[in-house]
Amino acid sequence: MKIHNDLLLRVAKGEKTERPPVWLMRQAGRILPQYRQLRASLSGFKELVETPHLAAEVTLQPVDELGVDAAIIFSDILVIPEAMGLPYEMIEKKGPNFPNTIQSNQDVANLIQGENAADELGYVYKAVELTVQELQGKIPLIGFAGAPWTVFSYMVEGSGSKTFSKAKKLLYANPVLAHELMAKITATTISYLKRKIAAGVSIVQVFDSWAGILSPAQYETFAVPYLKQICAAITEVPVIVFARGAWFAMEDINQLDCQVIGLDWNTPPAVAREKLGKTRVVQGNLDPCFLYASGKEVAEATNEMIRSFNGHHIVNLGHGVYPDTPLENVKTFVNTVKEFRY
Amino acid sequence: MKIHNDLLLRVAKGEKTERPPVWLMRQAGRILPQYRQLRASLSGFKELVETPHLAAEVTLQPVDELGVDAAIIFSDILVIPEAMGLPYEMIEKKGPNFPNTIQSNQDVANLIQGENAADELGYVYKAVELTVQELQGKIPLIGFAGAPWTVFSYMVEGSGSKTFSKAKKLLYANPVLAHELMAKITATTISYLKRKIAAGVSIVQVFDSWAGILSPAQYETFAVPYLKQICAAITEVPVIVFARGAWFAMEDINQLDCQVIGLDWNTPPAVAREKLGKTRVVQGNLDPCFLYASGKEVAEATNEMIRSFNGHHIVNLGHGVYPDTPLENVKTFVNTVKEFRY
Repeated sequence: MKIHNDLLLRVAKGEKTERPPVWLMRQAGRILPQYRQLRASLSGFKELVETPHLAAEVTLQPVDELGVDAAIIFSDILVIPEAMGLPYEMIEKKGPNFPNTIQSNQDVANLIQGENAADELGYVYKAVELTVQELQGKIPLIGFAGAPWTVFSYMVEGSGSKTFSKAKKLLYANPVLAHELMAKITATTISYLKRKIAAGVSIVQVFDSWAGILSPAQYETFAVPYLKQICAAITEVPVIVFARGAWFAMEDINQLDCQVIGLDWNTPPAVAREKLGKTRVVQGNLDPCFLYASGKEVAEATNEMIRSFNGHHIVNLGHGVYPDTPLENVKTFVNTVKEFRY
Repeated sequence: MKIHNDLLLRVAKGEKTERPPVWLMRQAGRILPQYRQLRASLSGFKELVETPHLAAEVTLQPVDELGVDAAIIFSDILVIPEAMGLPYEMIEKKGPNFPNTIQSNQDVANLIQGENAADELGYVYKAVELTVQELQGKIPLIGFAGAPWTVFSYMVEGSGSKTFSKAKKLLYANPVLAHELMAKITATTISYLKRKIAAGVSIVQVFDSWAGILSPAQYETFAVPYLKQICAAITEVPVIVFARGAWFAMEDINQLDCQVIGLDWNTPPAVAREKLGKTRVVQGNLDPCFLYASGKEVAEATNEMIRSFNGHHIVNLGHGVYPDTPLENVKTFVNTVKEFRY
């Protein structure tokens, strides 16, 4: 399908544009009153993720409300472990929890992987199809998955953690098993992303949310090779890699065969440009808390960021937008980008 | 009092030594069976912090058990807010919680500060005196405090947080009030550290545990100036500044008038040396999870780290030691350092 506003895709492919495109991580979520209303009527977060017409509905909510240049399919990175045989629950105000975790060779051997695991996620592909239908080519739809290390960390740790010391322990204590698990997650992620692409997403983002918890040596050994496999396998659409906190691996990430590098709010634009080069396409990276400042300050900071990256840039925050962010400031952020001209 | 093993102090002052000194953040804690036993007999964590002879006892436990080159007084960074009028509770398995937090001008105006607040912490100075007495000059005793930003983040947020978005929000939404609060915390911290020094500590460490949550611009505006004040004020003993996650501010931190810079496990030694210089004294930074590997691997990694920093180095982990770390590996880590010769 022809995409009318294809600014995001053109920038991802390296083209120069009049202004940068803009979208926000977590734009389909609690910042929107219509999301909160729908969510309150449901049994829980997973009902929303697993019901295609509802997932499509919340995916579309920010499109008109905010006027962003891309939609991102509403889902969760933890659908992958579940499809592999490790179900999760989402506990209100606490986050994800896995009743069973991966501890032994047998646990890894028992996992479903690749196409067979991807088969389990029909509700995601259906949500993508419905969303693409509704969008009618207005803007591109982004698909996403967790990076293998981040998915691994939940599967072993069993929940969020300040240190992820159980997950990291497995890397040090049983590296062979750790690589086997990473390989299975990677195979599944590739199959899953390809199905999403077949269903209609125009670009994909890989979230390595817990990259920053690893030492540089471990990131190089256990994370980078699997990101490489994913980037090599996904040739149909552009790939965005967002490895939060992995400043120490910036050169490695720059070597990946991906089209866009996501940057967190800790990364000064000048440092990113110095390490990645002037024409590497980057995405980010305003501090999400900046949207608590006044509208005037939001506009100034947004303009300053765009000028600092100086092209080849997709505007976003450096982290998902926080639920209590004033909607007016989110709109100011988006509108500031849309009014910018290089 | 004359310190017999003053290796840590000599390295902190820039001297060359035969081998680096070694201690571990959280060495007085759950890794030791004698700590767990004592802790189980008490009503809670705060009883231990607030009872001088018990705090002294756990401070001394690792000295013989591990053979470290320094003791660090058992306490908590949150005694400062409490002394300023904001009491905290420590909830088992959850962490700290403040029933009241700082939200308004009036809240900041109500706080006690400086010498008056430092007066409230007699139990800490008493614990220091008892510990110094018991140590009989064997090794130096380290005193510590939270950095102003980290203490601020708890006082505003009210608990630990993945994003500290409430604390960061105050910086953006009311910078004037934020600076007032930072100034009060800083004045109190200086008075407090000076009392600890008067009571007998030979060196102090300032922990900026949540440095990495701030954007580079905010860290420069709200954290660095107050660290500067502390470093300028503490002239009696060497100062270690450990700003976890503040890789983007490494140059600023290098400009501080402190004797030692603590490094987290994310920081490659080569990068630290490049940014800080060959003779800047650094402390750290093995990944605490490395102590889950085999003893042989622990020894190899420790030796490699020491060689990489190549002098002017205090050996430590890059984060507090995790409670379930095998004690044998902690000992291997310490003994490897003690056997090392440059």
